[in-house]
Amino acid sequence: MRPAPDWRQLSLPQQVARLLVVRGSGHLGDGQRRYPRWELPNAELKRLLGEGVGGVILLGGSAAELRWRTDQLRRWAGHDLLLCADVEEGVGQRFEGASWLVPPLAIGRLHGSDQARALALAAAYGRCTGRQARLLGLNWVLAPVCDVNNNPANPVINVRAWGEDPATAGRLAAAFITAAQAEGVLCCAKHFPGHGDTASDSHLELPVLPHGRGRLEAVELPPFRAAIAAGVATVMTAHLQLPELDPGRPATLSPVVLDQLLRRELGFGGLVVTDALVMEAIAGRWGAGEAAVLAFEAGADLLLMPADANVAMAALLAALGSGRISRERLELSLQRRERALEAVAPALAGAGSGSEAVEGLESSSERALARELGEVSLQAQGNPGLPPGPGLNLIRLDSTLANPCLPLMAPALQRPAQSGYAACLIDGRSPSPWNSNSAAPLALERLPPGPVLLQLFVRGNPFRGSAGGEEPWPAVISQLLAAGRLAGLAIYGSPYLWQALQPLLPAGLPAAYSPGQMPLAQAILLDALDLTGGGLEGGFTD
Amino acid sequence: MRPAPDWRQLSLPQQVARLLVVRGSGHLGDGQRRYPRWELPNAELKRLLGEGVGGVILLGGSAAELRWRTDQLRRWAGHDLLLCADVEEGVGQRFEGASWLVPPLAIGRLHGSDQARALALAAAYGRCTGRQARLLGLNWVLAPVCDVNNNPANPVINVRAWGEDPATAGRLAAAFITAAQAEGVLCCAKHFPGHGDTASDSHLELPVLPHGRGRLEAVELPPFRAAIAAGVATVMTAHLQLPELDPGRPATLSPVVLDQLLRRELGFGGLVVTDALVMEAIAGRWGAGEAAVLAFEAGADLLLMPADANVAMAALLAALGSGRISRERLELSLQRRERALEAVAPALAGAGSGSEAVEGLESSSERALARELGEVSLQAQGNPGLPPGPGLNLIRLDSTLANPCLPLMAPALQRPAQSGYAACLIDGRSPSPWNSNSAAPLALERLPPGPVLLQLFVRGNPFRGSAGGEEPWPAVISQLLAAGRLAGLAIYGSPYLWQALQPLLPAGLPAAYSPGQMPLAQAILLDALDLTGGGLEGGFTD
Repeated sequence: MRPAPDWRQLSLPQQVARLLVVRGSGHLGDGQRRYPRWELPNAELKRLLGEGVGGVILLGGSAAELRWRTDQLRRWAGHDLLLCADVEEGVGQRFEGASWLVPPLAIGRLHGSDQARALALAAAYGRCTGRQARLLGLNWVLAPVCDVNNNPANPVINVRAWGEDPATAGRLAAAFITAAQAEGVLCCAKHFPGHGDTASDSHLELPVLPHGRGRLEAVELPPFRAAIAAGVATVMTAHLQLPELDPGRPATLSPVVLDQLLRRELGFGGLVVTDALVMEAIAGRWGAGEAAVLAFEAGADLLLMPADANVAMAALLAALGSGRISRERLELSLQRRERALEAVAPALAGAGSGSEAVEGLESSSERALARELGEVSLQAQGNPGLPPGPGLNLIRLDSTLANPCLPLMAPALQRPAQSGYAACLIDGRSPSPWNSNSAAPLALERLPPGPVLLQLFVRGNPFRGSAGGEEPWPAVISQLLAAGRLAGLAIYGSPYLWQALQPLLPAGLPAAYSPGQMPLAQAILLDALDLTGGGLEGGFTD
Repeated sequence: MRPAPDWRQLSLPQQVARLLVVRGSGHLGDGQRRYPRWELPNAELKRLLGEGVGGVILLGGSAAELRWRTDQLRRWAGHDLLLCADVEEGVGQRFEGASWLVPPLAIGRLHGSDQARALALAAAYGRCTGRQARLLGLNWVLAPVCDVNNNPANPVINVRAWGEDPATAGRLAAAFITAAQAEGVLCCAKHFPGHGDTASDSHLELPVLPHGRGRLEAVELPPFRAAIAAGVATVMTAHLQLPELDPGRPATLSPVVLDQLLRRELGFGGLVVTDALVMEAIAGRWGAGEAAVLAFEAGADLLLMPADANVAMAALLAALGSGRISRERLELSLQRRERALEAVAPALAGAGSGSEAVEGLESSSERALARELGEVSLQAQGNPGLPPGPGLNLIRLDSTLANPCLPLMAPALQRPAQSGYAACLIDGRSPSPWNSNSAAPLALERLPPGPVLLQLFVRGNPFRGSAGGEEPWPAVISQLLAAGRLAGLAIYGSPYLWQALQPLLPAGLPAAYSPGQMPLAQAILLDALDLTGGGLEGGFTD
């Protein structure tokens, strides 16, 4: 890599391009992209990087593939890039082969009973994420979520949060940040000023938060203050309407929220990045160009996933030309970007060869961490063991397709199969398992016979399925109990669903909850129910 | 890579180890293995390679990951390895990111109407497969299938064959071999003496082929003769019982079949490799050690996937110690192995850097080949276009889980969705879509309403589902026609299913068949039905 040219020597269009963070696939080939609608094809990505675009957010691909990819993108750019990913739950959450950890809220709950251990685990979580991100060529971890999940119906934050109260969320997020940034990556506190108390999904519409300053000071802001005190390098804005603060603009576009509150009052001197500007609530209302200009004017330094990168750059250039945006303001953002990159450059330079990185990616202590997090967050009740099969292994999940939680050898499939329990998968695209009897909603005649092990993979709003309809799990529990067919219950993801269903269970019924959904979480949970592996799918944990 | 030591200087255990080809994952991490029951964990693989094991068969992982993996395995071994994969339908069939081509039988069918084009396509198929395999570090392509698929009910060969008659299969297989080996890899003609006329699956039980020498000469042997004449480097044995030739032993273990027929009568001087010895029909009956010794005694040089590599090596050493196997016989096999490796060593040495290999993996001519094969093998009828939605996109497939044909952006999902057709997926693990009325077997009340686009992903025996039960697709066609709800039909895979269902369709009904199941085949087929992409999932073909 040749040394990056000083941004002061760049042309104005190149300087503007540095502000953008566009989205690409972690896969090398265009044909491998998971979301071609959102992920730029390589020709376009290469052109934009050549024109000076300063960052890429990556999704998809294995860890090994990502290592090729980050090298490739840096080569295409020829200048220092910000390469980031939404690796909130370990790098393995997005890139197969890296460590995939249970969601942060698990540690938030532990904090109530064992603060020291929770803080130590949050730091280990940050170290693991920062180290693996750096080894794969990322220099910017879009975590931690600093939202306080005080609304169990929140469909978009939920278990991604580090706490359900401000103090917990703040302490743990700060521990994560300190540890991750010490590994040589930038962190990102999100979503400012706090997305925890919303019940609608900002990917679809603009949620409204009715709170004023007093309430924000009490609940939403403390974790961000803690993150800033811990030295977090970047903060991401929320696509939220806060009419008490700014009746006209969502937080992402609001000078009151970004410039006044975040910069001046909270004293944040690092990089402010928008959440994805392509989201309908922003791009649909303001358009790709004006949304970028408004966000920059409001105080953002970096513009994530503009709906159209070319339009956004042209609009920013026009705003600079007309004096709507000053050169000084542009230079301030570029200085902040430069400072951030300087802080992580030595770590990246010392990352070593690709084969060392990908072959030694998960250290033994990180493997132990993943297991410890799975074990400490497990909850179980009842007598272990299932009635002898043939039985039914009824699995509810958002989607069976391309689901990283359910490889063919997933413990949730394989272990019940060894006990003679035949898998039946319910998702939004399966033939309906429901009949019209609300007291006994499961159409048992459409399913294999025998005792039922019910396994529910639910992360977000526990009573809203992927198709938006309500799923009557409490009634199903009652129905199966009345029929004498409930053999066991496993819940992966939502603590709120576990809290709702566990009281319905007889004391002896084997049942357990894990906040994680990945194969390791399944193995740990099914171990607790005495559905052991017999070696067949051994290797998930070694 | 240091130069390989002459095998004559190796210890006897190391010499014996060279005969083995064990199975590993194309993934780097143990936790990523798709089939941990069959794929050795890294510690075991590393140990075996260190002890001198001579080959690895790989499955799983992306092309980019495979490139790391083959480097790693060669490093672990420190000697020349045979690295192979079952890439019968392009390297992309097993390793995402490489070219994935429609099954060979499509070219076999074209050969009936356009021999020259079929031969040119078979050669291009071989070039594409050989070149990409070499770039990713493989030196041995376990193709072509030389079985004559003259039994449409064959559950295991089927569309993998290059022809339904001996002359077609032989000519096309030879064209494939010549082109692929010119790219610097070894090919493998399989499964000797011919697996095409079986109706049971040798993965599960030992099929019996009642034919004598005359019939074999007329049907089964000509493609193998053609492959040998084309210089094929290796031949794989079949797990088949041929009582007319050898009443006691399956072909893999039979000196009559291997030594007498293949070596002496057909004059094959290359490497003979067994099919996977771990298959129940072999390992279950003879055991891991004796199966290896019997196969070697019968004439095999290389032993693929012994049920237990350590037991197999110990048994071979014991047989050498007792004189049951002679040192001359061992040396003959090692000489053949050395000659084969020498033939491909220059190509591997010239393979270039990893980033060149993975970034430029699929050339523009290979991309065009994949498209041409998809287009030339498409069959369509009726008037294009579907009735306006809301409608039902009913998809039948073997498994929704980890299915590479159905990424979330698969054309088979996305394009009907754009016309308002909601996907419903039927596989062996879905709630049953069937009722007890054999004349109208589909329980329509369990499915979304509206006109039905029926998409069937069926490759093997077309009337046997993954659960072994019969699926009544002819009755479903009649049922939907009678209800006025059949909007269209797409069949991906089996030409025999298309031949069975197409006569039931009204002339104007939009319907099409592709032998391929991958996203590109879906895009081409749905283009023909005028379900165009609108750019949403663009990129599958570029």
